[in-house]
Amino acid sequence: PVHTVQAFAAAAELEPYQHYMQKEIFEQPRALADTLTDVVSITPELFGDGAWRHFKDVDSLLILACGTSYYSGLVAKYWIEAIARIPVQVEIASEYRYRDSVPNPRALVVVISQSGETADTLAALRHAKALGHSHTLAICNVGSSTMARETALAYITRAGVEIGVASTKAFTTQLASLYLLTLALAQTRETLDDAAIAARLQQLRHIPAAVQAVLALEPQIISWAQSFTRMENALFLGRGMHYPIALEGALKLKEISYIHAEAYPAGELKHGPLALVTSAMPVVVVAPNDALLEKLKSNMQEVRARGGVLYVLADAHTRIENSEGTHVIRMPEHYGDLSPLLHVVPLQLLAYHTALGKGTDVDKPRNLAKSVTVE
Amino acid sequence: PVHTVQAFAAAAELEPYQHYMQKEIFEQPRALADTLTDVVSITPELFGDGAWRHFKDVDSLLILACGTSYYSGLVAKYWIEAIARIPVQVEIASEYRYRDSVPNPRALVVVISQSGETADTLAALRHAKALGHSHTLAICNVGSSTMARETALAYITRAGVEIGVASTKAFTTQLASLYLLTLALAQTRETLDDAAIAARLQQLRHIPAAVQAVLALEPQIISWAQSFTRMENALFLGRGMHYPIALEGALKLKEISYIHAEAYPAGELKHGPLALVTSAMPVVVVAPNDALLEKLKSNMQEVRARGGVLYVLADAHTRIENSEGTHVIRMPEHYGDLSPLLHVVPLQLLAYHTALGKGTDVDKPRNLAKSVTVE
Repeated sequence: PVHTVQAFAAAAELEPYQHYMQKEIFEQPRALADTLTDVVSITPELFGDGAWRHFKDVDSLLILACGTSYYSGLVAKYWIEAIARIPVQVEIASEYRYRDSVPNPRALVVVISQSGETADTLAALRHAKALGHSHTLAICNVGSSTMARETALAYITRAGVEIGVASTKAFTTQLASLYLLTLALAQTRETLDDAAIAARLQQLRHIPAAVQAVLALEPQIISWAQSFTRMENALFLGRGMHYPIALEGALKLKEISYIHAEAYPAGELKHGPLALVTSAMPVVVVAPNDALLEKLKSNMQEVRARGGVLYVLADAHTRIENSEGTHVIRMPEHYGDLSPLLHVVPLQLLAYHTALGKGTDVDKPRNLAKSVTVE
Repeated sequence: PVHTVQAFAAAAELEPYQHYMQKEIFEQPRALADTLTDVVSITPELFGDGAWRHFKDVDSLLILACGTSYYSGLVAKYWIEAIARIPVQVEIASEYRYRDSVPNPRALVVVISQSGETADTLAALRHAKALGHSHTLAICNVGSSTMARETALAYITRAGVEIGVASTKAFTTQLASLYLLTLALAQTRETLDDAAIAARLQQLRHIPAAVQAVLALEPQIISWAQSFTRMENALFLGRGMHYPIALEGALKLKEISYIHAEAYPAGELKHGPLALVTSAMPVVVVAPNDALLEKLKSNMQEVRARGGVLYVLADAHTRIENSEGTHVIRMPEHYGDLSPLLHVVPLQLLAYHTALGKGTDVDKPRNLAKSVTVE
């Protein structure tokens, strides 16, 4: 009943937006600020009583999730291995629960789900517990959810009710929570000193303002969307912590515009998908450095004759310029490790405006449910 | 120069086939038999002198590869964790080499590459060695290759020269080698007794004959290909050790027919890609069990009105029948853990016959090179 009330309350507030997804994209600065509001400083206890003891005892992480939440887990792997120096495995919940894996009781099992009720993720959590895992942590958007109750530790995002089927603010608040987890683990492991942790937390606090600046790119994204409205296919490329962002950008476009968008790690392009590139298959590149972009450009030269076109979402500091067949949008600021939280926002807007152009039902795309509580 | 000679020798032998890819698909029983020919019994020393010492010392595996070879590594993860009970990470070589990972000197680093020269995989191997990894093993098709020289251990597949850009016999012989590795690790770890290992090796020896029986499904595959020739998009679904086979089936179709085929773990369909399914987006399902198929069918019911169609490559023992919107090809025999080696063959044939129907240059698809020796 509480959810129903919240949903009605939110419904009353759709104005001035056309769709909940649009509203939720623009709510991200607020959702991120709310998610961080009670964080005075980094301590394991942000994740629950006794978190320090769990964090001290674990030697690795096993992250289990589905869909968009799985992609936030993939970003976290890059963060946690690089910053807290703890090995991380990320696995799709429906795969993990059905296969014969080697349990490591010293792994921290992290489940991620907007609703906290995703059937496969919940089943994966119970499977892990049955295999002897006792270090468990949930990241979800509903404090009263089953996952939050069935884990030893939890962090509740404060995205607010998300109505659009295509997740946006839930994803970025998951990322913020996973960055807090990274810092708390780095503290426990002493891979960062107090000053470095405080500086990184301070940078995280600036993220709502940074997202606000990225939202101002909307007019440039609308001009990209006008081209994408005519497309049936697209490739998204990323590398490192931006590969999951490419995956998420492709998923958003799939879900609401019905364009068959697929993401690849940039280095894999020449191992197959390059054969697909023509003028009908644009290539979106997320946050490449200059060296990678030179390699991609040389790949693309080969297909320029067939009209292959690059859409590049570049960092503030890269020297990439617009040229024939290469469209560049530059981000307002360079944000280092937090860059995935910023780069995903233009991709959400691209999916939204492309879907608008295609005239699809943005908030309720065909065939999909908001929370997948069946297997 | 040796390679040139071999290539000419092979070129002379194309008859009675139309394309090298077709020839290489049909050579798989021979290539698999050759790869196993010197294997009298399972012993670590199949992988080189001193392999026993390496295998005894390792506590996990890190498999690094690109493209099709990466997918063989993903199958191996399922085998090695389930049978030898050793945790396995599989990572795309171009991702691993550029990120900040946590090295574990007790991991066995396995690189997989047909040529043994793939630039990103070789760079990943050298990166791992620079991080302190000394347990290294190459699986490749060229005994004199750089990778075979730069690793402590190696297993050389005997696929023979592969000329078609789309890898076929190299993939299945990699799988056979990785299964031998699984059994050798299981022996070292004593997770299987001698009788069980001998029985599994015996089953592997029957694989050439089993592949021959699968090749006889060609007429049924040709009838599927007639439908696929009219398609621009496709989804491939698999679960567990057949998810990498779905990935490989989609990649083959991409590479030579230019159909935008994408693979998903079956459980992820409802987290996004289901929105894409219409009569123009067939769904190929690899080796589902009956329970999974019931779930998929109930998903598909929702899209039947839009014409969603299932193409099911079923195990011999499943009770799946042809029905409206569900096309079934049943495999001749059930092969347990070795099933990926068999299920990939019809997918190779599907890509080949679809490309024939589309009139593409099967052996030299646009934009692609046989061995990617640049970064």
